[in-house]
Amino acid sequence: MIRFTVAVSLDNCIAGPGQSPDEPLGRGGEELHDWRFDKSLQTPEDAAIEAEHGQGVGAGIMGRNMFASGRGEWDLDWKGWWGPNPPYGFPVFVLTHYPRESLEMEGGTSFHFVTEGFDAALARAREAAGDADIQIVGGASTINQALAAGVVDRFRLHQKPIVLGEGGARLFVEPARYKVERVVASPHVTHMDFSA
Amino acid sequence: MIRFTVAVSLDNCIAGPGQSPDEPLGRGGEELHDWRFDKSLQTPEDAAIEAEHGQGVGAGIMGRNMFASGRGEWDLDWKGWWGPNPPYGFPVFVLTHYPRESLEMEGGTSFHFVTEGFDAALARAREAAGDADIQIVGGASTINQALAAGVVDRFRLHQKPIVLGEGGARLFVEPARYKVERVVASPHVTHMDFSA
Repeated sequence: MIRFTVAVSLDNCIAGPGQSPDEPLGRGGEELHDWRFDKSLQTPEDAAIEAEHGQGVGAGIMGRNMFASGRGEWDLDWKGWWGPNPPYGFPVFVLTHYPRESLEMEGGTSFHFVTEGFDAALARAREAAGDADIQIVGGASTINQALAAGVVDRFRLHQKPIVLGEGGARLFVEPARYKVERVVASPHVTHMDFSA
Repeated sequence: MIRFTVAVSLDNCIAGPGQSPDEPLGRGGEELHDWRFDKSLQTPEDAAIEAEHGQGVGAGIMGRNMFASGRGEWDLDWKGWWGPNPPYGFPVFVLTHYPRESLEMEGGTSFHFVTEGFDAALARAREAAGDADIQIVGGASTINQALAAGVVDRFRLHQKPIVLGEGGARLFVEPARYKVERVVASPHVTHMDFSA
């Protein structure tokens, strides 16, 4: 199964306008995740849903803009935003136009750089995942590419009741129809599961 | 209290791209409302929530583009999309650049054309509503104007799990923060109440 899980604003942005090295989630974007990190905003049900994140995933696909700020040739000292032990625990295939050696990180995460496009990354992720799920990790343009390719089986939105505004990284570009699978609302976030 | 209630897509559109006299809700936009009209898609809770629509409202504000297709001088034969007995039952103040005589319709609806802008329409709506609520009826640009003015106290989204796509009439333009008040999910629509 191919799926994604993202925190979104009311205007369906997963990052605010003005993304930069200092503000990788753009203006206001960190607030999308406040309920994850501030336990006082979290209900037991939020915690249980958050604990499901990444479970059953055997491989991921990520856009270069989520792995690094900037474009062009690689700064080989850059190994992602997440430190030596990224929160994935599975091989992540990073879409890029610039070849680079794979990176083996701690905790089971590895980054593999794919220059042949989304379909090639998906083929490699399928091989790595075996019977486990593939997670389209992000960002928005990679998720939209997966949606446009019609390969996404399920997705989960953690909706925060904020508007990030014009210039944010928006999901959902092409007309489509999904099914509501489950909705769980808490004071600070609404969790919504959909299937294709 | 000032509020609005709209049916929205996953990409926060209240109408699809390509709105026209033949397709006033744009491509795909009618599907936003299918659960209202096709009782087989409706749960008892959907029906109860839908029955709340317009209750307690004493006056409305509507943009010209919701009242009529096209711009410029009025076609005085045009009295809105809704026939002789529109589904409002209260005075509706229509924002326009072109003066026109008020229209008294059946069932308590009247249309009053306001050329002095949103604040003037709001002042007239307040006077007409008295202690009752004011509903920002639509369309998207009028709702966004009300949101930008900071006058909206509550709003309800009936979210359909469809994407209408680029060029649709989108809500939510400027950064903002709301509170989740209540969420009710059904197989075909998720009802979400927010407060400012």
